[in-house]
Amino acid sequence: MKRFRVSVHIVPRKGLLDPQGKAVTDALHTLGFAAVADVHVGRHLVIETDAADAKAAEGSVREMCTRLLANPVTEDFEIAAVVAT
Amino acid sequence: MKRFRVSVHIVPRKGLLDPQGKAVTDALHTLGFAAVADVHVGRHLVIETDAADAKAAEGSVREMCTRLLANPVTEDFEIAAVVAT
Repeated sequence: MKRFRVSVHIVPRKGLLDPQGKAVTDALHTLGFAAVADVHVGRHLVIETDAADAKAAEGSVREMCTRLLANPVTEDFEIAAVVAT
Repeated sequence: MKRFRVSVHIVPRKGLLDPQGKAVTDALHTLGFAAVADVHVGRHLVIETDAADAKAAEGSVREMCTRLLANPVTEDFEIAAVVAT
């Protein structure tokens, strides 16, 4: 078993309202960042887990996302990186 | 001016308590994912902004993080990607 560091992005599903992103966009405009067109706010998780290889680590994290970490109705997730440590 | 999509990771500063990460770790253990050693929970922002070039886009987002998006006392940020759209 080796230790892997797996990064996951969980973001609001496209087309759904993202009120937090809208609030950040408005705040940036107020601060003078007029060039900002849009902001999406999601979660960035870094999971350190033991697994036989990188493929097993990714599969395991994918199952964690499905069962606990991401809301399947409103959120999409993607595995951004799997790094052996 | 071109449109750039800039991804930012904002994470709790190393060494500081990350109660949300601890809660997720415990929940994953309860669900049977015993191999999980540690979880860190941060934010993943995708900012669409207009800029002259990628360097200007990154500089502008860096300033947004310093002035609004990241808490300088408790959080670190990194620009993960700058992509022209």
